[in-house]
Amino acid sequence: MSQSIRDNLKRLLAPQHLAFVGGRSMARALKRCAEGGFQGPMWLVNPQHPSIDGIPCVATVAELPCGPDAVFIATNRELTLACVEQLAALGAGGAICYASGFAESGAEGEALQQRLLQAAGNMALLGPNCYGLLDYLHSAALWPVAHGGKTVEKGVAILTQSGNFAYNLSMSDRSLPVAYMASVGNQAQLGVAELMDVLLDDPRVTAIGLHLEGLKNVPGFARAAHKALERGTPIIALKTGVSQIGAELALSHTSSLSGSDALYDALFKRLGVIRVSGPVSFVETLKAAACGQLPQGGRLIALACSGGDAGLIADYAERNQLSLPKLEQGQVDELAQVLPSYANLVNPLDFTTAIWGDGEALQHMLDSALRSDADAAMLVLDYPAEFTGERKECDLLLALYCQALARHGKIGFVTSAFPELLPASAREHLHAHGIAALQGVEDGLAAWGRIVAYQANRQRLLALGESALVPLCPQALTGKARLLDEWQSKQALRPFGLPVPDGRLSTPGSALADSATVGFPLVLKAVSAQLPHKTEAGAVALNLRDGRALEAALHQMRERIHAHAPQVPFDRVLLEPMAEPALAELIVGIKRENGFALALIIGAGGVLVELLKDSTSLLLPTTDGAIRAALLGLRSAGLLQGFRGRPAADLDALVAAIRAVADYACENASQLLELDVNPLMVGANATTAVDALIRLGQA
Amino acid sequence: MSQSIRDNLKRLLAPQHLAFVGGRSMARALKRCAEGGFQGPMWLVNPQHPSIDGIPCVATVAELPCGPDAVFIATNRELTLACVEQLAALGAGGAICYASGFAESGAEGEALQQRLLQAAGNMALLGPNCYGLLDYLHSAALWPVAHGGKTVEKGVAILTQSGNFAYNLSMSDRSLPVAYMASVGNQAQLGVAELMDVLLDDPRVTAIGLHLEGLKNVPGFARAAHKALERGTPIIALKTGVSQIGAELALSHTSSLSGSDALYDALFKRLGVIRVSGPVSFVETLKAAACGQLPQGGRLIALACSGGDAGLIADYAERNQLSLPKLEQGQVDELAQVLPSYANLVNPLDFTTAIWGDGEALQHMLDSALRSDADAAMLVLDYPAEFTGERKECDLLLALYCQALARHGKIGFVTSAFPELLPASAREHLHAHGIAALQGVEDGLAAWGRIVAYQANRQRLLALGESALVPLCPQALTGKARLLDEWQSKQALRPFGLPVPDGRLSTPGSALADSATVGFPLVLKAVSAQLPHKTEAGAVALNLRDGRALEAALHQMRERIHAHAPQVPFDRVLLEPMAEPALAELIVGIKRENGFALALIIGAGGVLVELLKDSTSLLLPTTDGAIRAALLGLRSAGLLQGFRGRPAADLDALVAAIRAVADYACENASQLLELDVNPLMVGANATTAVDALIRLGQA
Repeated sequence: MSQSIRDNLKRLLAPQHLAFVGGRSMARALKRCAEGGFQGPMWLVNPQHPSIDGIPCVATVAELPCGPDAVFIATNRELTLACVEQLAALGAGGAICYASGFAESGAEGEALQQRLLQAAGNMALLGPNCYGLLDYLHSAALWPVAHGGKTVEKGVAILTQSGNFAYNLSMSDRSLPVAYMASVGNQAQLGVAELMDVLLDDPRVTAIGLHLEGLKNVPGFARAAHKALERGTPIIALKTGVSQIGAELALSHTSSLSGSDALYDALFKRLGVIRVSGPVSFVETLKAAACGQLPQGGRLIALACSGGDAGLIADYAERNQLSLPKLEQGQVDELAQVLPSYANLVNPLDFTTAIWGDGEALQHMLDSALRSDADAAMLVLDYPAEFTGERKECDLLLALYCQALARHGKIGFVTSAFPELLPASAREHLHAHGIAALQGVEDGLAAWGRIVAYQANRQRLLALGESALVPLCPQALTGKARLLDEWQSKQALRPFGLPVPDGRLSTPGSALADSATVGFPLVLKAVSAQLPHKTEAGAVALNLRDGRALEAALHQMRERIHAHAPQVPFDRVLLEPMAEPALAELIVGIKRENGFALALIIGAGGVLVELLKDSTSLLLPTTDGAIRAALLGLRSAGLLQGFRGRPAADLDALVAAIRAVADYACENASQLLELDVNPLMVGANATTAVDALIRLGQA
Repeated sequence: MSQSIRDNLKRLLAPQHLAFVGGRSMARALKRCAEGGFQGPMWLVNPQHPSIDGIPCVATVAELPCGPDAVFIATNRELTLACVEQLAALGAGGAICYASGFAESGAEGEALQQRLLQAAGNMALLGPNCYGLLDYLHSAALWPVAHGGKTVEKGVAILTQSGNFAYNLSMSDRSLPVAYMASVGNQAQLGVAELMDVLLDDPRVTAIGLHLEGLKNVPGFARAAHKALERGTPIIALKTGVSQIGAELALSHTSSLSGSDALYDALFKRLGVIRVSGPVSFVETLKAAACGQLPQGGRLIALACSGGDAGLIADYAERNQLSLPKLEQGQVDELAQVLPSYANLVNPLDFTTAIWGDGEALQHMLDSALRSDADAAMLVLDYPAEFTGERKECDLLLALYCQALARHGKIGFVTSAFPELLPASAREHLHAHGIAALQGVEDGLAAWGRIVAYQANRQRLLALGESALVPLCPQALTGKARLLDEWQSKQALRPFGLPVPDGRLSTPGSALADSATVGFPLVLKAVSAQLPHKTEAGAVALNLRDGRALEAALHQMRERIHAHAPQVPFDRVLLEPMAEPALAELIVGIKRENGFALALIIGAGGVLVELLKDSTSLLLPTTDGAIRAALLGLRSAGLLQGFRGRPAADLDALVAAIRAVADYACENASQLLELDVNPLMVGANATTAVDALIRLGQA
């Protein structure tokens, strides 16, 4: 994104004047901005009517008194193109293009989108095929329909690839404080990455929520997400396309996207992006971060008025790695003064309904409970339905809780057993006090747990250094692929520091003579790029103890290869010393996903591959620290750390070996299609790549 | 539960007359029943007032014209006791005791509860310390406060140990059709098991929801749950106490409960009980079953009006093991006639908003899509907020969908991206048509998936036969425990069919002579109940190849035991042939949880124990089929089934070996504290219990 576009995007996101191009729906949009409190000049552009619904119209954008900071264009695609051209000439800040029929609709539309992009020049351009932009910091609702939102002083920014999702979110009854919500549409110019980058410069944006089918610009996203990590602004992502059918849908929707869901996980993990699984956890997690004050740790003091709620809290706290420190004796004694004898004075505290409506007792209870070194407080509060006329006591407790938190300088949140039992009035009261109102005790504690985990992760991730490295984003290779044989592969990797056996390339005829320089026991392998599956082809003989055994093995191998693959010449063999018995076998590989990333895959090998399905991916480039963390995060990591009295592996050497594979891949990113080191034998004293295979392509 | 109590409980659950004992709150409760449509006689009992709020009072229950079918007693505990006595004498059906201060509050209260139970005699008794009983089949709200419910023709029954949970549920805005909701309180007489059993006799009860901290009566619960499984009535359980703190809370709440959470899982699994994790999934899963028509399979045809929703559907379907069969070409051709060219004609179908509000096109679309052999249809529909005035189009689609389902003879459901975007009017319209309204697309598909899984499981579980066996519920053993040594343990298990090595008990002095009858290579073990951890004590020598090796091992063993445990005499040794190399090692054990169950634990042994944490529990008694299913459900089951070209284990023999452990445990349930067979070596030709240990107690 050029500096000029960036400057114009800043105008679009903090507009002093607005224009709406279109008919009655735009007249209504303009009116809603006025009602919402937008103070600057607003123009309605329509060539056919002198006024619509009492709002005077300007005939064309060329006649506007200046280039507006933000323009919402809701006309057909041809007029949109003309309008964008004129606005750019006029020096407008940014245009939001609602029209569809561009790149999403085939070749003709794609050409039109290219023209639109050129017409925009340095003007910021959102869309086309996008629903609009809600800006509640400046009361600018560049939005085609009614929305339920209110102006805020700070809040979250939401970027979504689905206009419908944006609309539903605007209709949801969750009291999420939204600073911005943008439907990104075709992302012709401004995409998720570009918007994130600029939004992060505004300290009033407390968190960013992304609803994605895929990413168009992985390096740009990574740069923006790293900036967010440095600033401590949580990014919360709801990404679809986890399933096979879902991935196909996403592809047909956006064609340019790629990257398997597992690599998205790797990308998000590297950058501390919080991944959620659905609309509810998306909103509730954003709410947990929206106030801008994030918890320093996971210790909670929890309050509820029933044993049933306390039981739920206890289970959900544990599930979300939140702790409930024991009450101190002083707290117990104080609580005993106001709570009935049958109250269970523990954390989570069931303060019972005995003191319901008794302000003094409630305040005493709150003060006793909050005199705690917990990182945050939580209260479960369920409002009865309106028709009962019995919400006063809840309001009282809510007000006392807000005051008590302020008095004790504690952050906290309120939740309810059922999401709908925390009404809008209560949520707004809480938000006004900087307290999160998380709907549903299960979702609420999960949301809080995610923010606590984010906080705990943030410094660790920054220290690992991986988030600062921009992922490689390889192009597709169209030329013919070429397989390196085992010997070539090992020789290619050795200079990067991969320890391979000290073997010797030989021929069947001179193998016996050459065996002396290798020593017994040794391993004999046929070498050919045409034999990638050597074991199945009988092309490997292990643990040969002497010359006689070697001769017998050579003879047998010749016959078996001839029977198995008669076209493969048996003309080169590899002699290698036997590796020492391993503490663990690993598989280390590289996977290329064009347009997305090169990924380093580290997994348990040998028998455990199938039983444990234990592997992890790191995008390249990566760091030693990240490799080490990935190794220790394997389920079979115990095997490397002195399992059952065996010695521990030399982790530094193991990291260096894996690092060699990563370095080779980075240096050969332009041509590397596939790489497999299998197995990497991890011994007590040495790590050895026993087999390796590389496939290269051509651009 | 005696037949008399059972008959009286049936009166309580289908009352023809009601009485309320108490003051103004009871007068209001009576009025609410009248307003709700209760037609029979109702009496208010109060000794102090001739009438309350215009309702005439009877001074004592003794003066009632007959024993009412159902009485709600909301007085203090002493008056409650007197009242129950008089009601029993009068031949009342059942009494609901609201008062607290009974068993939950200590020894004195426990004594009072015993007297209450005696006073009730054969009258049905709910509580004490319970919130009440809502009966929406007969418009009888024996409930102390306002509730939002309506009379239904059929619906779910909910039993909860938390009055607060019941109250919150009554206030939730979910349109769950409730037939009965009971707060069970202290379960002095009627508990979860007894209520379930009688509720299952009413075909209008379509599913049962349980909110539990624990069970008081495991055998009774199992009998009732088996009855439910036979009838096809889903049981949905939200059980707390998963976490350590949660378990402690549950214990302090109810003292009599026991059973670790893992054994609850085993109990629920055996009986097909659907376990959910929170209030929302509890209600939504009940709603998926509430209409009474359950899906025959997991094939869905899914409709949405946006690509964003379709993406979520695809992901959630896969996650919940639901399938989305491809559209047939005929369907695609028909859909192309009414949908715009950019519509993606697949399942899930994004029918776009192009036909929004166009009844004819929508009907064409629905007819084309529903002409499918899918087991059910689903529609994602998000209502805009009321203030937009734009709900008409949604109502139109909803009505057309209901009609189309009826026309095509399909069951189905509707869901929304956010739970709150399916308003009450829409939900009630759907329920009236027997269509589930599941709030939130993520929770909705999860709920539907649970019911589909329940259906798929039901016949399988009934065929396994395990659900019909009532779990053993052992008493606590207070006497001194006694450890059998390895030889005794093996001899105890052998008659039940556990294959143990053909060994010989000997002494250090005669071991060499006795070795001839065993044969080399052999294993030498010291035998003593004081050496449970033989390997650590140096009391095992493996693979001794000849007499010299045996003598050396005897010498070394004597010295090491003397050094390790000088108090243990080295006077008996066991000589056993070496077991053949194993395909897999298993651990088979018995765990006793007093008041809950004897559990058979089957797990992966050897190195995999720590890496896989791979074990499963079956409550006793169990069946061969269940043991086999448990084995094949292990994560390491592959090792038993011809892993990587190795032979497969003889599963019948393995099941018989495990069955022997189970049979021994059942026969010795009155004294067995603990049993461990570790390892059970599973070879290609034979299964052998290489070591075994039994601990017995005394009553």
